[in-house]
Amino acid sequence: MLLRIDHVGIACHDLDEKIAFYEKVFDVTVVSREINEEQGVNEAMLHIADGEGGGSYIQLVQPLGPDTPVGRFLERRGEGIHHIAYGVPDLPKAIRQMEAIGVRVLDKEPRHGAMGTSIAFLHPKDVGGVLTELVESPRRQS
Amino acid sequence: MLLRIDHVGIACHDLDEKIAFYEKVFDVTVVSREINEEQGVNEAMLHIADGEGGGSYIQLVQPLGPDTPVGRFLERRGEGIHHIAYGVPDLPKAIRQMEAIGVRVLDKEPRHGAMGTSIAFLHPKDVGGVLTELVESPRRQS
Repeated sequence: MLLRIDHVGIACHDLDEKIAFYEKVFDVTVVSREINEEQGVNEAMLHIADGEGGGSYIQLVQPLGPDTPVGRFLERRGEGIHHIAYGVPDLPKAIRQMEAIGVRVLDKEPRHGAMGTSIAFLHPKDVGGVLTELVESPRRQS
Repeated sequence: MLLRIDHVGIACHDLDEKIAFYEKVFDVTVVSREINEEQGVNEAMLHIADGEGGGSYIQLVQPLGPDTPVGRFLERRGEGIHHIAYGVPDLPKAIRQMEAIGVRVLDKEPRHGAMGTSIAFLHPKDVGGVLTELVESPRRQS
């Protein structure tokens, strides 16, 4: 069911500063930047590795304001790891499987994620305190 | 410098219960179980994917007691994501690079990690609140 660790989301106060830090310390490269109004974040994807099931990234997320999910996370816990995202082959099917097994899905319909992906978040209370995201990559044109 | 997201460490109260949960919900398989007295944890590695740079795992960690780093983490923040670990090709070299750049390394000498790896942790205050582990896989016999 899980193809890869797609990314780990890290909440920060200053996206540009944190990108510069990761570039300098870990020699990683930004492959995508995006403002996601729906999720209330300014975000960047930094490429770590490729695998059979797709790429793995660090996602740095800066809240667009204090009254957003990531803004409240920063207020409560400070900067740090915010969520983990797994690649799945078929997101609507994965959502149905989660609901069938009793894991609440915060997004009933897949929504827009970074780099053209479809995503859905699972309720952290149903996944041992871990905010968990499922990610389906965009289908390649054949 | 980074070969892969080696694993994401998740702190939990009951390792057996959490393993059963991940097996059931995400259809992943335990590939290693270990008690690490030095780190004060009972831990399991669940395989997610393989890539060019090696495997990716979820690491579930249960503290051996309340007065351990993971025990204090659970007391303070509850169950959830504890750390992220990146694969590196040469851990002693990576440790020297981190120190040269001003990132404090909690383990001056590589120490024993899961599945025969060598590991070192970086100070979370120097990595934007993220407890970061560097992992070198055991060298294969040729």
